[in-house]
Amino acid sequence: MISDTWKIVDKDFKKDLKLKETLFALANGYLGVRGNFEEGVPSNITSTKGTYINAFFESEEIQYGEKLFGFPDRSQSIVNLIDAQAILIQIDDENYSLFEGEVLDYNRELDLRKGVISRTIHWKSPKGSEIKISWKRMVALTIKELFIIDLSIESINFSGKVVLRSFVDGDVSNMVSEDDPRVGTSSAKSLKVTDIFQKGISSFVCAQTVNTKFTVVCGISHLFPESFTEKVDCYKESITHTYTGDIKPGGKISFTKFAVYTDSRRHESPAKSNEEILTTSANKIFEFYAKAQEEYLKDFWEKSDVLIQGDSALQQGIRFNMYHLLQSIGKDKVSNISAKGLTGEGYEGHYFWDTEIYIFPFFLFTNPDLAKNLLEYRYSILESARKRAKEMGHTKGVLYPWRTIAGDECSPFFPAGTAQYHINADIAYSITQYFEATEDEDFLLEKGMEMLIEIARLMFEIGHFRRDGKFCIDAVTGPDEYTCIVNNNYYTNALTKNLFLKAARFHELLGKSNPEQQKIYTEKLSLQNSELQDFIKAGDNILLPFDKEMQIHPQDDSFLNKKVWDFENTPKENYPLLLNYHPLTLYRHQVCKQADTLLAHFLLDQEEELDLVINDFNYYEKITTHDSSLSTCIYSIMSNRVGQYAKAYDYFMNTARLDIDNLHHNSGDGIHTACMGGSWMSIVFGFAGMRLTNGVLSFKPHLPEKWESLVFSIQFKGRKIQCHLSKDETNFKLIEGDPIEIALFSDKLLLK
Amino acid sequence: MISDTWKIVDKDFKKDLKLKETLFALANGYLGVRGNFEEGVPSNITSTKGTYINAFFESEEIQYGEKLFGFPDRSQSIVNLIDAQAILIQIDDENYSLFEGEVLDYNRELDLRKGVISRTIHWKSPKGSEIKISWKRMVALTIKELFIIDLSIESINFSGKVVLRSFVDGDVSNMVSEDDPRVGTSSAKSLKVTDIFQKGISSFVCAQTVNTKFTVVCGISHLFPESFTEKVDCYKESITHTYTGDIKPGGKISFTKFAVYTDSRRHESPAKSNEEILTTSANKIFEFYAKAQEEYLKDFWEKSDVLIQGDSALQQGIRFNMYHLLQSIGKDKVSNISAKGLTGEGYEGHYFWDTEIYIFPFFLFTNPDLAKNLLEYRYSILESARKRAKEMGHTKGVLYPWRTIAGDECSPFFPAGTAQYHINADIAYSITQYFEATEDEDFLLEKGMEMLIEIARLMFEIGHFRRDGKFCIDAVTGPDEYTCIVNNNYYTNALTKNLFLKAARFHELLGKSNPEQQKIYTEKLSLQNSELQDFIKAGDNILLPFDKEMQIHPQDDSFLNKKVWDFENTPKENYPLLLNYHPLTLYRHQVCKQADTLLAHFLLDQEEELDLVINDFNYYEKITTHDSSLSTCIYSIMSNRVGQYAKAYDYFMNTARLDIDNLHHNSGDGIHTACMGGSWMSIVFGFAGMRLTNGVLSFKPHLPEKWESLVFSIQFKGRKIQCHLSKDETNFKLIEGDPIEIALFSDKLLLK
Repeated sequence: MISDTWKIVDKDFKKDLKLKETLFALANGYLGVRGNFEEGVPSNITSTKGTYINAFFESEEIQYGEKLFGFPDRSQSIVNLIDAQAILIQIDDENYSLFEGEVLDYNRELDLRKGVISRTIHWKSPKGSEIKISWKRMVALTIKELFIIDLSIESINFSGKVVLRSFVDGDVSNMVSEDDPRVGTSSAKSLKVTDIFQKGISSFVCAQTVNTKFTVVCGISHLFPESFTEKVDCYKESITHTYTGDIKPGGKISFTKFAVYTDSRRHESPAKSNEEILTTSANKIFEFYAKAQEEYLKDFWEKSDVLIQGDSALQQGIRFNMYHLLQSIGKDKVSNISAKGLTGEGYEGHYFWDTEIYIFPFFLFTNPDLAKNLLEYRYSILESARKRAKEMGHTKGVLYPWRTIAGDECSPFFPAGTAQYHINADIAYSITQYFEATEDEDFLLEKGMEMLIEIARLMFEIGHFRRDGKFCIDAVTGPDEYTCIVNNNYYTNALTKNLFLKAARFHELLGKSNPEQQKIYTEKLSLQNSELQDFIKAGDNILLPFDKEMQIHPQDDSFLNKKVWDFENTPKENYPLLLNYHPLTLYRHQVCKQADTLLAHFLLDQEEELDLVINDFNYYEKITTHDSSLSTCIYSIMSNRVGQYAKAYDYFMNTARLDIDNLHHNSGDGIHTACMGGSWMSIVFGFAGMRLTNGVLSFKPHLPEKWESLVFSIQFKGRKIQCHLSKDETNFKLIEGDPIEIALFSDKLLLK
Repeated sequence: MISDTWKIVDKDFKKDLKLKETLFALANGYLGVRGNFEEGVPSNITSTKGTYINAFFESEEIQYGEKLFGFPDRSQSIVNLIDAQAILIQIDDENYSLFEGEVLDYNRELDLRKGVISRTIHWKSPKGSEIKISWKRMVALTIKELFIIDLSIESINFSGKVVLRSFVDGDVSNMVSEDDPRVGTSSAKSLKVTDIFQKGISSFVCAQTVNTKFTVVCGISHLFPESFTEKVDCYKESITHTYTGDIKPGGKISFTKFAVYTDSRRHESPAKSNEEILTTSANKIFEFYAKAQEEYLKDFWEKSDVLIQGDSALQQGIRFNMYHLLQSIGKDKVSNISAKGLTGEGYEGHYFWDTEIYIFPFFLFTNPDLAKNLLEYRYSILESARKRAKEMGHTKGVLYPWRTIAGDECSPFFPAGTAQYHINADIAYSITQYFEATEDEDFLLEKGMEMLIEIARLMFEIGHFRRDGKFCIDAVTGPDEYTCIVNNNYYTNALTKNLFLKAARFHELLGKSNPEQQKIYTEKLSLQNSELQDFIKAGDNILLPFDKEMQIHPQDDSFLNKKVWDFENTPKENYPLLLNYHPLTLYRHQVCKQADTLLAHFLLDQEEELDLVINDFNYYEKITTHDSSLSTCIYSIMSNRVGQYAKAYDYFMNTARLDIDNLHHNSGDGIHTACMGGSWMSIVFGFAGMRLTNGVLSFKPHLPEKWESLVFSIQFKGRKIQCHLSKDETNFKLIEGDPIEIALFSDKLLLK
């Protein structure tokens, strides 16, 4: 069915245009451009044009009907930037449009190995003129500011004038949704053009966000046929370059547009940098950059590719997902991975726990340097987290924001926002995993321990020892937002236990391996030995809810006392429930938006408790709606864990192609990066059964019936290991690095 | 110290001006006018001018940072109306002002028996002219639309021109607070002047609310000295009447201003009605209305007065409170009693459960017709409550709004708003009390049962029978807003039990006493016998949390598992806690804003459980901050109940003079009507120990040391009973009606 799993192909431009604008979005972690048609679409067609820079945001006062103490004051929302996509084509007096005349041939494809989108059209105008147009576009992975569009027009039967109009346009706005809380609600127009100017063959639009006063500059420049004339018109917020020339049947013209984006969060002088980059870039042909792009991706795929023999739909899905994760990940300290990557404005471009729990593992095990950058980002906002802890009335430690761009808490609805204190434990978990996968002591000494200790301090402060000696954490919300503000959420407590014990253990370890450096952070943090003892005591005695009668772990203290949701009488159109029921109705019932207790079981794989995990799986599966895109991947992994293999595959199918097949009906607003990360996890942690536990890597593979083999590579403690799994055999090959021991089921294997 | 407990006296106009504007506010349940100075105050003096009509409101879209399903769309906020208070006085070229020249004498007093405020001033102008000014004002209790200001000026040494300028001014706005969620946050300017006109000697300003399109008309007319000239100037939003004449030393002039307010919620044609009322009113002198006012109040005090011998501060406090309750209570079906009466804009003029639980009893036992009107109001919004239940996803019954004016839920923060489902049980409680105190079967048949059954249906639907057979209600908030969204809140469950069992019992009773009428509502409601069985089963098996080890009733399932608030290290300035801590910090601790479990013990007095009540009292008292003005009255009552008499008095002191002494530092924003009702309850239910249980009235009096005697009257089942309590004796006298049996401690007394 899918002939080439390296490609995403669009044969029908009329279908799901907005969805495809997401699927064909290009990005490089800094700059993102949605897959809009250069020539535009008629106004009656649903389309969202967008260009974004990671972490480039506007801020506004958050409006509350009733604002209580400690509610965040201001929003942070990613900004739709100056548009450089538009290029109009006119032949004589006819404007080329896919929605007029006749489209004799249409093909758009994204080549995941090339990082280029090509779009070819054979078009017959209303008056009968036929031309072939070939578009190519890329957002350079090697020069983060650079976006290039390449265009060639071939005449079949047309003889006459060709006019190309290329724009750089600052009159842009954000999309707004009143109904769906998952889309931004900030006011639409946040960018104000401050200057437009022309210099040599280039044109620049400079703009500033109204409140945050961030500057963005977009410069464009063109390569055009020598025989064509150029005319430049400056307007209030835009500049148009018009190129005019002739074409004859059989003739062909080529045209390249370079657009460079710079911004004041990354560039000291955005206008000057922009000019420099544009000047050095705009004199090389498209293929020059296309080659560099392919080289870059070759390296990426060598590290990351997952090869599934026997399942081309999945093969394509997982590659698409990995490609988009690469496109989405911020590579500097001010940026991270937003919930929608750089493909849309959903969730306002915010960074959530999705990063640590769903996306981080992919990078940790394929590209640890990029993973490290995600932790560096968290370290860069440590001061904000310290401030937030104070605002929330805590005397010590840090509280990471539930959602943010620059570090400030931006969640206006605290029961499903700030109350999710598990974000703290999630970040701690990724630090412990990072250290155990890389043995990067320097990071731990310089930054990691500070984060761990400060997080542990806060989690210790919010908890308390109950009458019976159990350490309890009250009034928090776990990952499952269908039950908010609960006591002793299993997930939160389980991950906090991990945090307490590992922070203490790492500290002890560093005392042995590097006592001098250990002393530095110990002094910086005024870390007392008694605190570490507290952490250990709390970790050892933390309450992990358990119902003896039912032999399952309740999601929180009260969960099992509630009424089970009436699934039978819930019409299909009432899902996702959060869009159709008041939160209190959800809170009142046993109903889960996503994996919660099971997620803890996955992350903290407790071999000895497998029987109970099976009970939990069977119980929670019945009451989970998977209304969150973060759910099915965990269910896929845990289905494998508990030996329900058919389910593992079904859940994985939902995960692996969620955006391509638009399974949640909202991919048009942007991709689901967490789910994409989850699809990689479903393979590696699910079907290959990989776990990293206390520094030991282990595998319990089980391939789906349909698959012939599964091949992927892992970076681990400086090694590169290739894993080759088939129905009959499991092979590990040490590609790089010193011998290392891993576990396969109960066997230990020394890879040499 | 207080020479006349019938008066509220102000001797120092410079002190606490805004507070006194509240204390000297006049109202009649329809119209309310704050005690502003007619001549105004300089702009650097803190003052809030206000005129309000009960239930006259503007509505705006409620802004949410993140709006979820079922969140209320629109606000309802009481509107500051066209001002008619202003009268300026000029002598020659000097403007009279208390803040210029010299004030040789100043006295303002509100006479609670007369319902009139008089203010006398002896003023010496900067240039040495001396005049005496005597102001009087009243809001007529007999003509709800009428507000009158009477003025006389006597010259001591001044000879020359006197100019009086009287205004009717539509350029008004509401006050706004960004910091305190208890004050409104709606936009300030909600009234738009639509017309101004003059007719005969009267001037009218007509205005309309921007969104609700309610019309209000204010007409003014004057009686002025014959020797004076009159000039009228019309401006865009106001009209000024200027009166000019002369005065000599020893001379005296008199002046009366009549202001009439009409509105489109009460008057079919507000302008026409206004004109009619003004025409018939404005030709009689002030004393004419003052006499009618005194008559009206004579009747009120005969029914309501509470006489405390030996404690003048309390005597004054309790009279002031009863007077303000009378001023505040709506006497038509569209209005009720707002949290601040008609004295300010705090809480947006909303009606809360305060009415049923804190204010209703005073009227029920002194003026049952007015009490009935409060229930009629709830019946009038039954349809809104039905709609709200549907919005919240319930299939049956009604859910009363937590806060509203016209019936729609207006609470933007649902954890301490919509989640307080106990409002339903509170209203049911007041219906059951009403019936047991009045035996008004007609009301029950026509309206009461419909409300009870519909409320019971909803409460039954949100609950469920747990594994162990207990009926549970999850995810609600009790009265104590420092712990939100809990399972099995003791108060909610206890009152719901009362609701279930009384609804069933009343239905049975009506089946015997009036089967035909019973049939009518049974059919109207399609009431099934099985439903009544369900109610009884749920009522009999409802979970009332109890901790066996500690022998106390936890406020909810999880309350006792939480950490106790660190009161010792909480600085005094951090109270009220809600203004200084994030809700989650509060939720995480055992800390109560107000009585919750104890309130249930009070309302549902369970004689047999007194030992446990004492335990609860001792436990909760330690962790209650009384940050709510609804708290200390209940603690006073329960202190008496558990025999801690010294405390009973202290708590009562806090209650009885809360506004007069500005104990919560916010009475300037308006009175605390619930606390005022609570002070009456503290006396009658507290010191006199009165209870109405299953139709039987009982007393367990215990007077404070300081009191010589306590005398008050009660209306009960058509009787009027005077209760005379002293240290040595308790006497009940049947003033009106047939013999009736009551209980005094364990004795039964037949009053004849």
